[in-house]
Amino acid sequence: MQSLNIVKVGGKVVEDESRLATLIKRFVGMEGIKILVHGGGKTASEMGEKLGIQAKMIDGRRITDEATLAVVTMVYGGLINKKLVALLQAQACNALGLCGADLNVIRAIKRPVKKIDYGFAGDIVEVNRPQIQRLLDQGITPIFAPLTHNQAGQLLNTNADTIAAELALSLAKLYEVRLIYCFDKVGVLRDIQDDNSLIKQLNPREYQDYTSQGIIHQGMIPKLDNAFAALSRGVKQVTLCREEALSHGEIHGTTLML
Amino acid sequence: MQSLNIVKVGGKVVEDESRLATLIKRFVGMEGIKILVHGGGKTASEMGEKLGIQAKMIDGRRITDEATLAVVTMVYGGLINKKLVALLQAQACNALGLCGADLNVIRAIKRPVKKIDYGFAGDIVEVNRPQIQRLLDQGITPIFAPLTHNQAGQLLNTNADTIAAELALSLAKLYEVRLIYCFDKVGVLRDIQDDNSLIKQLNPREYQDYTSQGIIHQGMIPKLDNAFAALSRGVKQVTLCREEALSHGEIHGTTLML
Repeated sequence: MQSLNIVKVGGKVVEDESRLATLIKRFVGMEGIKILVHGGGKTASEMGEKLGIQAKMIDGRRITDEATLAVVTMVYGGLINKKLVALLQAQACNALGLCGADLNVIRAIKRPVKKIDYGFAGDIVEVNRPQIQRLLDQGITPIFAPLTHNQAGQLLNTNADTIAAELALSLAKLYEVRLIYCFDKVGVLRDIQDDNSLIKQLNPREYQDYTSQGIIHQGMIPKLDNAFAALSRGVKQVTLCREEALSHGEIHGTTLML
Repeated sequence: MQSLNIVKVGGKVVEDESRLATLIKRFVGMEGIKILVHGGGKTASEMGEKLGIQAKMIDGRRITDEATLAVVTMVYGGLINKKLVALLQAQACNALGLCGADLNVIRAIKRPVKKIDYGFAGDIVEVNRPQIQRLLDQGITPIFAPLTHNQAGQLLNTNADTIAAELALSLAKLYEVRLIYCFDKVGVLRDIQDDNSLIKQLNPREYQDYTSQGIIHQGMIPKLDNAFAALSRGVKQVTLCREEALSHGEIHGTTLML
């Protein structure tokens, strides 16, 4: 099986010129086939504010009314996605910006309203694996904006971590997938203030121990839960790191294993 | 040679829900391979105004400073392009939104400063014909936003009429290209107030006569000059019409011929 790196970067990386330059350089330097998934929530919130649309969040999830959907479509699908594509093309990486509607690559449904109405938020139904494989086979590097569609004409706002994980799960049937989450920290830390307290490897038992002892920070738990779920369903490796650690070889960060 | 329809629609069509619905229906109904190029200037100007960025126009061309480039990247590359793609995918048209940076499909240079500094405006240098052909061969319908790049990381604002014409000229080497400009009128009119005064066919000699007699409206002249230039350089047919006239067969509108 061929290796495939799926890199997810948060908005904070693409919104900081110096971190963005590092990301582009390191991502381009990764050999082999790869996919980039980006966020952009901070820019979307700022843009919405300038337009008089207040960001509404519940438990870290954005409530996407119609005006907010327009803002995220502009910011994720246009501003950030096309900037990344142009920067990658300048480095001879044959990037192609995609939202879920393009080539119908990610189909979702509008999240059913239970206690909370998230508005135009999408829950992923299907990743179009054959189409993505065709792109990768042609040497194309897909750059995913965190937007999907319902195949009935409606765009939907979809969490970038989730898109990365769903792509990884789907493509694990065809490739040895390494899923890499770039974020603010060098990895999972024993002491959130101390980069030297990096936990280099983590298995489910250790994870359980750390969380029960309160060593792993609360905010990391949803991310790590998702990461272990991906591993248990066929993704070869999940790594958490900063963008400057990106590499096709070993990565300085936290690697999860079963 | 296979036929290829390249349809250009102005912002006014995609910004009006009812006209947009007609466009989608008629475009989807066109058999064979096809490309859509869209504008969006009105939405961009409105969005810019909401963000406190005044649109600066000289002779109908936008002056693209950095803030304006961000606005057009959002509006053209994100808001309008992704909406069109989602609506077309809902009708089983395998649409793919593209700006010139995606797959390096259209390379441009920043317009040299002579009398006027247009800012981040792009003059097209090269259309990536093999790449576009590969997409068309796969049954993909490219949807072009009026943005290009300089292959050095800079996005550039580029007139949608020009993109449509340059695509037509480049692809005329591979296909029998029909270039169709959808606009507000049923075609070129003898009397701009009277749709019944449609000029159904126009050759260069008649065009010269009409313009010298002041029968063809001033605003049409740059569009028609470009259209005749495209014909003389290998494009099979150029037609001007309203979106409801779109068809793979004969089109009710003005057809230019040499």
